[in-house]
Amino acid sequence: MSNSDFGLIGLAVMGQNLVLNVESRGFKVSVYNRTTSIMEEFVSAHPDKQLVGESTLEGFVQSLAKPRKIMIMVKAGGPVDAVIESLIPLLDKDDIIIDGGNSLYTDTERRDAWCSKEGLRFIGAGVSGGEEGARKGPSIMPGGPASTWEVMKPIFESISAKVDGVPCVTHIGPGGAGHFVKMVHNGIEYGDMQLICEAYNIFKAAGFSNEELADIFAEWNAGDLESFLIEITANIFKQKDPETGKDIVDLIVDKAGQKGTGRWTVMESVEQAVPFSTIAGSVEARIISSMRGQRKNASGILQGPDNWGFELSGMSKEDLVSKVRNALYASKIVSYAQGLDLIAKVGREKNWSLDLGAIARIWRGGCIIRAKFLNRITEAFEADADLTNLMLAPFFTEILNSGQKDWREVVALAATNGIPVPSFGGSLSYYDAYRAERLPANLLQAQRDFFGAHTYERIDKPEGEFFHTEDWPELIS
Amino acid sequence: MSNSDFGLIGLAVMGQNLVLNVESRGFKVSVYNRTTSIMEEFVSAHPDKQLVGESTLEGFVQSLAKPRKIMIMVKAGGPVDAVIESLIPLLDKDDIIIDGGNSLYTDTERRDAWCSKEGLRFIGAGVSGGEEGARKGPSIMPGGPASTWEVMKPIFESISAKVDGVPCVTHIGPGGAGHFVKMVHNGIEYGDMQLICEAYNIFKAAGFSNEELADIFAEWNAGDLESFLIEITANIFKQKDPETGKDIVDLIVDKAGQKGTGRWTVMESVEQAVPFSTIAGSVEARIISSMRGQRKNASGILQGPDNWGFELSGMSKEDLVSKVRNALYASKIVSYAQGLDLIAKVGREKNWSLDLGAIARIWRGGCIIRAKFLNRITEAFEADADLTNLMLAPFFTEILNSGQKDWREVVALAATNGIPVPSFGGSLSYYDAYRAERLPANLLQAQRDFFGAHTYERIDKPEGEFFHTEDWPELIS
Repeated sequence: MSNSDFGLIGLAVMGQNLVLNVESRGFKVSVYNRTTSIMEEFVSAHPDKQLVGESTLEGFVQSLAKPRKIMIMVKAGGPVDAVIESLIPLLDKDDIIIDGGNSLYTDTERRDAWCSKEGLRFIGAGVSGGEEGARKGPSIMPGGPASTWEVMKPIFESISAKVDGVPCVTHIGPGGAGHFVKMVHNGIEYGDMQLICEAYNIFKAAGFSNEELADIFAEWNAGDLESFLIEITANIFKQKDPETGKDIVDLIVDKAGQKGTGRWTVMESVEQAVPFSTIAGSVEARIISSMRGQRKNASGILQGPDNWGFELSGMSKEDLVSKVRNALYASKIVSYAQGLDLIAKVGREKNWSLDLGAIARIWRGGCIIRAKFLNRITEAFEADADLTNLMLAPFFTEILNSGQKDWREVVALAATNGIPVPSFGGSLSYYDAYRAERLPANLLQAQRDFFGAHTYERIDKPEGEFFHTEDWPELIS
Repeated sequence: MSNSDFGLIGLAVMGQNLVLNVESRGFKVSVYNRTTSIMEEFVSAHPDKQLVGESTLEGFVQSLAKPRKIMIMVKAGGPVDAVIESLIPLLDKDDIIIDGGNSLYTDTERRDAWCSKEGLRFIGAGVSGGEEGARKGPSIMPGGPASTWEVMKPIFESISAKVDGVPCVTHIGPGGAGHFVKMVHNGIEYGDMQLICEAYNIFKAAGFSNEELADIFAEWNAGDLESFLIEITANIFKQKDPETGKDIVDLIVDKAGQKGTGRWTVMESVEQAVPFSTIAGSVEARIISSMRGQRKNASGILQGPDNWGFELSGMSKEDLVSKVRNALYASKIVSYAQGLDLIAKVGREKNWSLDLGAIARIWRGGCIIRAKFLNRITEAFEADADLTNLMLAPFFTEILNSGQKDWREVVALAATNGIPVPSFGGSLSYYDAYRAERLPANLLQAQRDFFGAHTYERIDKPEGEFFHTEDWPELIS
């Protein structure tokens, strides 16, 4: 009996689906789970497949061909360390451990160093696409030693999604690069979802029916905004609740959960001093949504227009749809500009030699943010690998310039009508600040010099020369 | 010769001013500096004062009365640890080390545990007020063991600022509580400064002269907005450059610096899942301001209204001033609501028993955010110690309700006219989300259930019961 080509530890939903995906490409797969009954159940549910169920970690390791390729699909954090720790004494030099969960990239950096010290190779691989992606073809973002890529390429490429025949996987870079890029991917996903919700909120406030909403998103999906999230949004509005016959979207409580990667992205951006407003808006929106009791209470106290009913006053529904579409598209460009800026900054700092065009390319399929739009990002970085900001690539500049007037109108309309638009608005403020030859920070520097002698530069003196005003006017107080 | 009452290590500007302040209240002070010449220069510059200059750490420690009270004013980070490490073998049980710098509060927690293990007492004390505050009376936020308060109270109370005879110092809480509250104070300071800059930007865009601006801020300072930052802003607009005779504010480069506490506040808020939009807007604004070269380049590429020249079209200057004032006031309330929310959340989590009213009280004088307004915050928490959100205290609700229409108009005006208002706009989005009985997060939960089987609650079922739709419509793609 030949050894298995691949092993997987952790048979929760994602793990099971990944195993079935790998097996379906002609690989023999060994599986292990801490609770043995789950492993046994899984294996016996698939009698016709090339699966080897092992009840001990020793047996599991022995069942694998060398260099062993072991993927861990357990909860991020302590459990990953525990599995690695128990694997180390059982493995041989150059065996490969792959963490396919949503680990914090700094943990991955630590584990990479740890495994390397033990003579092993560690891959922190972002895997996006949910259950269905795991089963049919996810987008995979593996980091780790370059030597692992040749070993893993046949498996990764065969199990990943394909777009125009190109697999949605590439070696991202060393160390924690894979999980880092996956983290930012998730942050961008937060932004994309929030932008859709803000559009929905405005339409809902203007009295659109769910049927109209389904049509709007279906129409958007037929154009430049074509993407998985826009498409499922159209479908969500069509879904009835079997129990009540009502539209399911109207029955769902408006309290959003979050698991951490969106928040991590914002924290990383703040730490790296990279702009973050679109994704930050999405994170704050989820936080406030979860304070439902407080909101209910405050709604009777804090005044403003009723945000679920405003008059279009002269504007046609078609006009509103077209303006909101342009606001969403422009904000989406900002969100990707900020996310890619973060990737570029950290990549440079860590010497990861990241290829932003290739990263956008592997997001085109399999993952939650998959979209036609990503082809344009790839093209932008192929045309100019050192592009300072996505907004400055001609294709995106053109969209922003032609859409900015509508975008402004939508943000103004929302502010006037009591509709929160943290991501539309935050993106617009970023856009207007980024294109501002002068910002009011001269006053801020004057304040800092006034109270803290922080000094300032002068527009009529060379850059890098600092001045302090000794005799700011005395205060009365 | 009697021993000194107080010792200070680190004679940079803040350290020197604190020493002179302590000495001026009748205490004898020993000083030590790593570079001895700086200590000698300082001591000999003040021959008439009760100062003891020591060139060795041993001599410095021996010169102090027990329990020794030693304040460290060195750069945050490694230098603080280095000083503590060299002090430990020289000190006796119950001696007190006070870190008066801007240390990260988690470092303070670690040092508190470390010193306590060594039988010493550690105080992480936030000190705000800049050079002048340090000399004449800062706001002091000391954390650490409760037993230190009785020892330090006479010194802290005599050197701190006083408002209506009340010293601007109180024992904040154990461990890192003092530095934590100082961090949030600084975040709020960032927000306050940014809101003033946004008002300035709008006025500047509308063509106001610096003379008019000085008058506006002086007038605001005579009313409810009375505060140190508004007052110095009025004065800044009056300051001429001695070299050119021009207004200095127009000569200062619009690139803002930042040292870290504002960014830490945002990161902490994100980590704690507490809303953060106003302060986040200020941090992002500083980041973008520092990208001056990119901005100059983008200004010729990305289109929109020229943000330094818009027409008031029918609105009088007085009207604009009054609307912007209301927008600033409302946004400021939001900023404090978010900052206090963060303090309350972390305080609860750490069991620090923080008194929010007392914290607002000690910010009334000495520090950069000192303002009349803080009396109202203290009153709000005195009236209701468990106040969920500052916006819900009647005094603040009234201001928000009466100002929200103007606030909306200002955010809409800025969006329309290409003026970035991340903090005005972010605060308004927070306000509108917080008072929204329904947010669009139901759609977001539907999306998460669609692609990740994350489940959702239903409005027609009990809270805490989770549902999953098995048969979301199939995708075409």
